[in-house]
Amino acid sequence: MVLPAPVARRALLSADEIAARLREVPGWSRSGNAIERTWTFRDFSEALAFINKVGGLAESLNHHPDIANSWATVRLTLTTHDKGGLTSLDFDLAMKINSL
Amino acid sequence: MVLPAPVARRALLSADEIAARLREVPGWSRSGNAIERTWTFRDFSEALAFINKVGGLAESLNHHPDIANSWATVRLTLTTHDKGGLTSLDFDLAMKINSL
Repeated sequence: MVLPAPVARRALLSADEIAARLREVPGWSRSGNAIERTWTFRDFSEALAFINKVGGLAESLNHHPDIANSWATVRLTLTTHDKGGLTSLDFDLAMKINSL
Repeated sequence: MVLPAPVARRALLSADEIAARLREVPGWSRSGNAIERTWTFRDFSEALAFINKVGGLAESLNHHPDIANSWATVRLTLTTHDKGGLTSLDFDLAMKINSL
């Protein structure tokens, strides 16, 4: 069973909070109402394995990045669509992805 | 071992050939130098399963679509990058993807 995230983790972050949290997730940068990071792997097979690991994390957190893949390259974009911007959910997932 | 595709399958298609081959791949449409199709699944899990099936096909043909996923939605874009446009490789893969 996937429980909804606590209310506080779903509140929109201020610009200062976003700047502070970006420092916790090396490689990610802000892009409008979202944060994104791009990885380049050795080949498509490695890129797909990464996408599957990210997918498992996303399912367990019930929060999903947008995924763009072109052969060995994967770009992930995170935002909280139903809030119209960045929340702690996005940074929590980015941290877990960085730990993969 | 993955062999290179025969030369004829890697030749750029003319506008007439592209129009003819598009009729063989329902759901795909031309977008500049590429063809693309979008699928909407029930949820992320189904979308990811589809991406993995497409990935297996792509590896077996040594020809890979660009993949864009946003939760239950998957958009695939096909072109032959090293030829700068559409070849039979793209339509052969699109047909196999449509048969999944």
